[in-house]
Amino acid sequence: MNVGTEWIVDAEGCSAELLRDMEAARSVCEEVISDLSLRVVGEPVWHQFPQPGGVTGLYLLTESHLACHTFPETGLAMFNLYCCRPRPRFAWEERLRALLGASRVNVRTAARGGEADHTSLEAEGKPSFEAKFSEPTSARGVSRP
Amino acid sequence: MNVGTEWIVDAEGCSAELLRDMEAARSVCEEVISDLSLRVVGEPVWHQFPQPGGVTGLYLLTESHLACHTFPETGLAMFNLYCCRPRPRFAWEERLRALLGASRVNVRTAARGGEADHTSLEAEGKPSFEAKFSEPTSARGVSRP
Repeated sequence: MNVGTEWIVDAEGCSAELLRDMEAARSVCEEVISDLSLRVVGEPVWHQFPQPGGVTGLYLLTESHLACHTFPETGLAMFNLYCCRPRPRFAWEERLRALLGASRVNVRTAARGGEADHTSLEAEGKPSFEAKFSEPTSARGVSRP
Repeated sequence: MNVGTEWIVDAEGCSAELLRDMEAARSVCEEVISDLSLRVVGEPVWHQFPQPGGVTGLYLLTESHLACHTFPETGLAMFNLYCCRPRPRFAWEERLRALLGASRVNVRTAARGGEADHTSLEAEGKPSFEAKFSEPTSARGVSRP
């Protein structure tokens, strides 16, 4: 019994200043939630670690959860999105470049549930060095029924 | 730059009754936290979904996060533990059998951070059919400095 997909997203080369800024991290999460029409249960939990630390945010979703951790000292931002129901893929590479200044984004997926034993976890290919950020982003801000 | 390990744990064949019981799920998480000497920031967030749904719990940790989702209708319980600092491995198979009645537990690990691109994600071997639960659990309840 498969019960959804988890996206495990590691972004490198981000702006240290943005990774210390809770609002920048929050804007990524809010965009993920909006774009994928996820439904938040209760209030998200955010914590700012003492300097030079970053921030952590957790969202409880009816579709499962979204987590965000930033590490300004190493330019890294980590996201987990687990959706127990089918959802489109977020444009992680493009948006993390735009919102956090990421130079490289690695997206892996994990099928969750009883089928996990023979699906293992998969990298979605080589980490992306994004070079086309002058292109308009498509399908953003479009509400889905 | 590696920034820790994520454990992705999918347990099958759990007791539906226990998966509907927030206290049973909470007891697993509290044991993980206690055994690994994790430090919780603020209050954990728990939500009980309407019947026949399960529960979701999220813990913001100084070491990153712990998430729990249960699905009584399919006997599945899912856990994510992301630790940005080294921690021992929790005895997922043994304890999920004891606490939730799991018949099969699949544990995968993901190295997080910039090294993730060439480490991918790894299954820790075949899902475990645990047969030795009469043995005493070792190293539980032992506080670590």
